Amino acid sequence: MSKKTLLSGLKPSGKLHIGNYFGAMKQMVELQNSGKYDCFFMIADYHALNTVQNAKEMREYTLDFILDYLAIGLDPKTSTIFKQSDVSAHTELAWIFDTITTMPYLMRAHAFKDAEAKDKEISVGTFNYPMLMAADILLYDVDTVPVGQDQKQHIEYTRDTAQKFNNTFGETFKLPEPFIMKEVAVVPGTDGQKMSKSYKNTIPLFATREEITKAVMSIVTDSSGETPVNVYNIHKLLRSDEELKAIYDQNKGKYKILKETLIEDLDAFIKPLREKREELSKNVEEIKAILADGASRAKTRADAKLLTVKKNIGVN
Amino acid sequence: MSKKTLLSGLKPSGKLHIGNYFGAMKQMVELQNSGKYDCFFMIADYHALNTVQNAKEMREYTLDFILDYLAIGLDPKTSTIFKQSDVSAHTELAWIFDTITTMPYLMRAHAFKDAEAKDKEISVGTFNYPMLMAADILLYDVDTVPVGQDQKQHIEYTRDTAQKFNNTFGETFKLPEPFIMKEVAVVPGTDGQKMSKSYKNTIPLFATREEITKAVMSIVTDSSGETPVNVYNIHKLLRSDEELKAIYDQNKGKYKILKETLIEDLDAFIKPLREKREELSKNVEEIKAILADGASRAKTRADAKLLTVKKNIGVN
Repeated sequence: MSKKTLLSGLKPSGKLHIGNYFGAMKQMVELQNSGKYDCFFMIADYHALNTVQNAKEMREYTLDFILDYLAIGLDPKTSTIFKQSDVSAHTELAWIFDTITTMPYLMRAHAFKDAEAKDKEISVGTFNYPMLMAADILLYDVDTVPVGQDQKQHIEYTRDTAQKFNNTFGETFKLPEPFIMKEVAVVPGTDGQKMSKSYKNTIPLFATREEITKAVMSIVTDSSGETPVNVYNIHKLLRSDEELKAIYDQNKGKYKILKETLIEDLDAFIKPLREKREELSKNVEEIKAILADGASRAKTRADAKLLTVKKNIGVN
Repeated sequence: MSKKTLLSGLKPSGKLHIGNYFGAMKQMVELQNSGKYDCFFMIADYHALNTVQNAKEMREYTLDFILDYLAIGLDPKTSTIFKQSDVSAHTELAWIFDTITTMPYLMRAHAFKDAEAKDKEISVGTFNYPMLMAADILLYDVDTVPVGQDQKQHIEYTRDTAQKFNNTFGETFKLPEPFIMKEVAVVPGTDGQKMSKSYKNTIPLFATREEITKAVMSIVTDSSGETPVNVYNIHKLLRSDEELKAIYDQNKGKYKILKETLIEDLDAFIKPLREKREELSKNVEEIKAILADGASRAKTRADAKLLTVKKNIGVN
């Protein structure tokens, strides 16, 4: 039996933290390594263009992003890793979808309504985002799109659009299924709130030993109990409950020792990732070659699909 | 001094009549033949897709359209004649423009407001039309876009978008100028109203002798004067005032003779066009070759420009 096709579009958005990793990236790598899927990992730079409107930043974000994902284990040999902007079929199909989609339908999208509630001056690209996303997915006859619970609507828009096209022009697109990623317990930051760049409570995913130490030492603890809850909750990401029980039972109230143990464990987890990333970053030519190879593989598949679409609408 | 670049996007929309010809097409051919311009004539099939959503119709309209335009004198040797859907850079640049354009700005476009007033369910493509049109024009460093007085706003949107891009990402696009086509007196139909398909009062541009006879014989005349005004007004398209004066003075009140003269004159004008179209239609392979050549020339120029754009936004 042939493998199912999986696609994930990832938007470059600056420095990653362990919250990103344990929240979604880790599951992405696990899906790849399961061997069940033919994986496409797309760096969604044309989506990112709605917010990143500076060439230098766009280049930096994109390079950082590919280094990050290769370091955590995406494998360019088994997966197709490519930049959206390298495959023109995405925007071309998005336009085609524009012509069969009505304004009121697209205006009902949550993302648009949320964005518009904050700022009336949002870009047409933010509004039109679901059509480009539908193109991203439908070009590859994707079966499976891993998403968080809150992103299910994106897939519904994609399915609706596929269905509308099929009804209008004849059977063309396969309807993808969302793969709802298991809700990972919210990763807590150093202040106990959800780990998030905007709260400045993160532990960077590729932190140096010094950065780890600084972050862990800044973890907010209160002196009311014998177990520092915020330390424990981050520690939980790295060790089983039994292991942790042993450590925390043995060191009741010894916050300093517990923090030092967490530093050791974080560094043991981060060090190989950090070193792999460091290694990769020394060879930018290899990164370029990986992206060129990914682009070529994605293009072959997307262009073939687009050709079918163009025949079905009568422009080819 | 190098020639100016002219681009005209033409939307396939069914059978042409002499009103279309004397209204705009004739001026297009004259602009080409002036030798002052490097001309790009684009068959706007991706714009047409907003209304033509049937593969068979799209193919027919496109073929008819290219036959029509070649027959009236567009010259594939001196001009680049191509299908929009053959050059993916158009939709790609349209997406890039989406990301720098705000919703309220695009909602102020006349075409959107008019369309929405008639039907709330208009397509996203109808709304997003000005961004694709901006891409159509800006990809070729166009100097001159021939438009009717009522289409000036399209060029303003294109200029605004070019300026906004240049301000955000550095000097990239040349600002095009509209070339307002001279207001041709409204071409009257067989009932004296403006000639229009919706009024069923047209004389087809490639009419046979029989069709011409039928149309002219159906011209509405009243018996109040010596000159049949509706006959005269169509006749005016084909002969100078002096010539007409002689004819109409000589045949006062003789409506039949005057109609027969108009039939002769229309046939003398239409016959070479009709025969050329007939000839061209026998060789569909040649038409395909013309479009393939046009696509290749347009693509070379558009892709080079898009590459600059992609470097300037940092995705390349």
